[in-house]
Amino acid sequence: MNVGFIGLGRMGSAMVRRLLRAGHHVTVYNRTRDKADALLGDGAVVADRVAEACHADAVVTMLADDGAVEAIVFGAAGVLASLPAGALHISSSTISVALAQRLAAAHEQVGQRFVSAPVFGRPDAAEAGRLFAIAAGAQTDVDRAAPVLDAFSQKRFYVAERPETANVVKLSGNFLIASMIEALGEALALVDKSGVAPRTFVDIITSTLFDAPVYRTYGALIAEQRFEPAGFAAPLGLKDVRLALSAAEDLRVPMPIASLLRDRFLALLAQGGERLDWSAIAGLAAADAGSAGVPSGDRVPSKTGDGHR
Amino acid sequence: MNVGFIGLGRMGSAMVRRLLRAGHHVTVYNRTRDKADALLGDGAVVADRVAEACHADAVVTMLADDGAVEAIVFGAAGVLASLPAGALHISSSTISVALAQRLAAAHEQVGQRFVSAPVFGRPDAAEAGRLFAIAAGAQTDVDRAAPVLDAFSQKRFYVAERPETANVVKLSGNFLIASMIEALGEALALVDKSGVAPRTFVDIITSTLFDAPVYRTYGALIAEQRFEPAGFAAPLGLKDVRLALSAAEDLRVPMPIASLLRDRFLALLAQGGERLDWSAIAGLAAADAGSAGVPSGDRVPSKTGDGHR
Amino acid sequence: MNVGFIGLGRMGSAMVRRLLRAGHHVTVYNRTRDKADALLGDGAVVADRVAEACHADAVVTMLADDGAVEAIVFGAAGVLASLPAGALHISSSTISVALAQRLAAAHEQVGQRFVSAPVFGRPDAAEAGRLFAIAAGAQTDVDRAAPVLDAFSQKRFYVAERPETANVVKLSGNFLIASMIEALGEALALVDKSGVAPRTFVDIITSTLFDAPVYRTYGALIAEQRFEPAGFAAPLGLKDVRLALSAAEDLRVPMPIASLLRDRFLALLAQGGERLDWSAIAGLAAADAGSAGVPSGDRVPSKTGDGHR
Amino acid sequence: MNVGFIGLGRMGSAMVRRLLRAGHHVTVYNRTRDKADALLGDGAVVADRVAEACHADAVVTMLADDGAVEAIVFGAAGVLASLPAGALHISSSTISVALAQRLAAAHEQVGQRFVSAPVFGRPDAAEAGRLFAIAAGAQTDVDRAAPVLDAFSQKRFYVAERPETANVVKLSGNFLIASMIEALGEALALVDKSGVAPRTFVDIITSTLFDAPVYRTYGALIAEQRFEPAGFAAPLGLKDVRLALSAAEDLRVPMPIASLLRDRFLALLAQGGERLDWSAIAGLAAADAGSAGVPSGDRVPSKTGDGHR
Repeated sequence: MNVGFIGLGRMGSAMVRRLLRAGHHVTVYNRTRDKADALLGDGAVVADRVAEACHADAVVTMLADDGAVEAIVFGAAGVLASLPAGALHISSSTISVALAQRLAAAHEQVGQRFVSAPVFGRPDAAEAGRLFAIAAGAQTDVDRAAPVLDAFSQKRFYVAERPETANVVKLSGNFLIASMIEALGEALALVDKSGVAPRTFVDIITSTLFDAPVYRTYGALIAEQRFEPAGFAAPLGLKDVRLALSAAEDLRVPMPIASLLRDRFLALLAQGGERLDWSAIAGLAAADAGSAGVPSGDRVPSKTGDGHR
Repeated sequence: MNVGFIGLGRMGSAMVRRLLRAGHHVTVYNRTRDKADALLGDGAVVADRVAEACHADAVVTMLADDGAVEAIVFGAAGVLASLPAGALHISSSTISVALAQRLAAAHEQVGQRFVSAPVFGRPDAAEAGRLFAIAAGAQTDVDRAAPVLDAFSQKRFYVAERPETANVVKLSGNFLIASMIEALGEALALVDKSGVAPRTFVDIITSTLFDAPVYRTYGALIAEQRFEPAGFAAPLGLKDVRLALSAAEDLRVPMPIASLLRDRFLALLAQGGERLDWSAIAGLAAADAGSAGVPSGDRVPSKTGDGHR
Repeated sequence: MNVGFIGLGRMGSAMVRRLLRAGHHVTVYNRTRDKADALLGDGAVVADRVAEACHADAVVTMLADDGAVEAIVFGAAGVLASLPAGALHISSSTISVALAQRLAAAHEQVGQRFVSAPVFGRPDAAEAGRLFAIAAGAQTDVDRAAPVLDAFSQKRFYVAERPETANVVKLSGNFLIASMIEALGEALALVDKSGVAPRTFVDIITSTLFDAPVYRTYGALIAEQRFEPAGFAAPLGLKDVRLALSAAEDLRVPMPIASLLRDRFLALLAQGGERLDWSAIAGLAAADAGSAGVPSGDRVPSKTGDGHR
Repeated sequence: MNVGFIGLGRMGSAMVRRLLRAGHHVTVYNRTRDKADALLGDGAVVADRVAEACHADAVVTMLADDGAVEAIVFGAAGVLASLPAGALHISSSTISVALAQRLAAAHEQVGQRFVSAPVFGRPDAAEAGRLFAIAAGAQTDVDRAAPVLDAFSQKRFYVAERPETANVVKLSGNFLIASMIEALGEALALVDKSGVAPRTFVDIITSTLFDAPVYRTYGALIAEQRFEPAGFAAPLGLKDVRLALSAAEDLRVPMPIASLLRDRFLALLAQGGERLDWSAIAGLAAADAGSAGVPSGDRVPSKTGDGHR
């Protein structure tokens, strides 16, 4: 299949490599060209302009946030202006529900097809073709998107007709992870002060009630207060919680844990945690209990990972 | 081994049957004798008084709450007065950390041995010998308790020397489950109002991020708003959250999600949810979002399960 | 002084009448002209276009929200395009801090002067010249604005040089009122269920600790669960809390009570409270306690007041 | 009138001096006798035992907490055992609702009369006879208590027949003050980071919306982060919030702000704020916003005031 791909962060680049290995013809575009050139050896064609990447059956966008997607799609000579009628835009970025709605409406108006398909998983899962794709849109469009999505995903889920529903699922999933982090942080603050080794507690609960990788991963990080380097940086955590709250506000759904999470992320960032993993909010529970200082990225110079979840 | 067993609710009775099948000699006591008599056919000896059940190498208590344990242990002719020096008291009830401390101190003073060993799992898991035992106390005492605990448990964990640390782990584990219920309730309130079928969302997240039985079980209950009959009734949920908060207060550990859970349970009970499963707090998120009425047990006459978790 | 005035809701109209009585020459503009015509008898000159109201020494804007202000100021032939260089724009609307910043920058760029001067008080206070004006901007500009502000205010406060600081004060003041409403709601839910007449409690605390009109006013409304007609409607309450949270988010200031208030307003609106006074969030505390139904505007057809606070 | 008085902290001693000046005959008792002796010069008779202070028409208890009251009332040769039938016990301590209920029942059973009459105000107000007495009990009993209460109060309020209702009012009043402190803390964290001088904000709101002494007092303390010496120490704040939550839990009344306050006090105490004024919880909002360190009493050695509110 003839595929355009826009947005070559760690996630995007890994997804492109999977597409190439699956035999697709892939034209890539990135704002800073060096990341595109890095894929030449894998067989990618490098586009100088967004429009070139849109000469395709389908174009995938995998960008950082609403602003980046708006610029690439609605900008002059952007996706909307360049994609042929009938061709498919697959949006895999973690964006707001409202923007997904706008994209759906805009593409419909000009006769382009649109599938929203955010993914669960980190860059290493993308590299291994082990992401989970959460797709929504017209069933026929999602079927057309399947060969693309399946190239980097271990499983694909169909949510509903309205594209933005996939974004609701993605944001709600990330909300559940963040909730789990906060709850673990509070539990570990308690067990630690009670004289139970945090590691022992994590071992017990992940061998019994919560036998799931996500509990093991974050349980270990929190038990060891190991918040650097960031797998998914705190500002991205704030962004996703904010997007969930924003979708919920539009529908008038109170979400008290989400409100708490937002406050936690603000406190973390206000106190210098910009570069830490989002699980560092769990360190605030320990700090409030007087067991530890506030986690702060100021102490150790480090690179923030750009891993998408 | 010569074992006394006090407290024959659904959990206790199942544990006794496992002990008998494992070849232990078990003398059982219950405040209302009929539950004890029901175990005669399985080979149990029925005691008329607490003291008789204490003529044993070890006596297990599996009672409803702090009040019941205090009465049985500290009462006239209770466990403390009756257990031989050097014999072992294994406390498996879900009780407060403070009471576990008092029990440890009281037994030590009179030369009895004490192990705190609450369990994770419901009555059917007990029946199948599939509980998880969380044990704390002197290592030698926990070793002595092993044949008893292993009779009804698939796995046994050692926490620390101080017996009450096992109770901290138990309460923190239940807190994590309740946190998950609340978070699921909020997420489902959002996805439902967004036009995503709750069942679809639960299928997606339990196939991806949260592939654990506890998410599947509660996800299904909440997606279907099926809160009766109660596997673990709401008042027990409130009790456990309160015990976690109480332990945390003594150690000065703020736990904002636990505070929220307490408020949720109070709201549920204030509005008639006494007989519902504790997962019914998730229904409050939907009610706050205007998607459903407040869950209430008043409408359907039903029996509340006494399942311990 | 030659004054333009844009935005003739109940607040705006009352302010104009005060300006006229103080001897100013006032040219008024409103999107729907009938409200402007209603002021003819008081001596106002009616403008057909925004630009006409800007042929003045100072133009006051008193509009519903950010959107309305943006349209009037930045729109074609709007305030920005029409106001003479050196003339003064006094913004009294309750708008976001971010918009106040944008306004300040935009006016500065074209050589116009800008004062942000939101007010505390309801329409009847405006009518009586008893508002409180909270002004920020260059000291000389605020001095120039003084004769305008003093026409409808009993007192004028100077905040700081940066105009948006006045909006921070306004939003923070409204946040304090909303916090008080929530706290009163919780306290009254408790005293009511304890057997104390709500009215008695309100009398006691407003005669002792909280001898302030705002406690008396809202205490009475909440004690009597009298939430209609709205003096300040719930959607406006949500708007103001959201603006406070938004300003706080930009500066990374966690405000847990503000988060709670946001959730309360969402719950109120989700359950049909659109037309109620914002103090109806206090009814949710009683509803959660099982003492009352959720307040809902559906039952009684009524007009929502547009009173600004 | 012949009055016994038990509990001679700063509040109790001041109340005794007022009683003496009003012409009552007062026999005082304190656990540590020196505080009693200090009142000799004012005309008090010093009792060696509780029983002596109970040879009176009425005995007032003004003690630190539930434990102290239980010991003095229910202990051997305590108030219950010593007060003549028909004589009156006036309980002015800030105690739990549950204990007030127990006291009422116990006195009734032995034919003694009981009035619960906690007060609002600090020691200096007691000294000046400017407390507010909140009384509940049989109307005739409160009438009998009037000359006592009026000796140290500027005003007396009657709540209801059941004595414990006065305690509900007292605890709810203190909850409202603590809520105001938290709200002020959040607002000041925002305005401060926005570039508004905290003092300016406090001046504005106390000249407009919140023209009440309690806002001025606490507003000043918080604006200046002046939390020592404590007028009412943080542990007492925690105690009162806990008592309010406990009463609310018994009646199943969720109080989310009270839950937040409890978490704030725990965080404050966990981080070394034991000796600070309870308004120091407002400093946590600033600390979370990164504007200040966590308030801690470790830095400045100081005496904690025992001022009752």
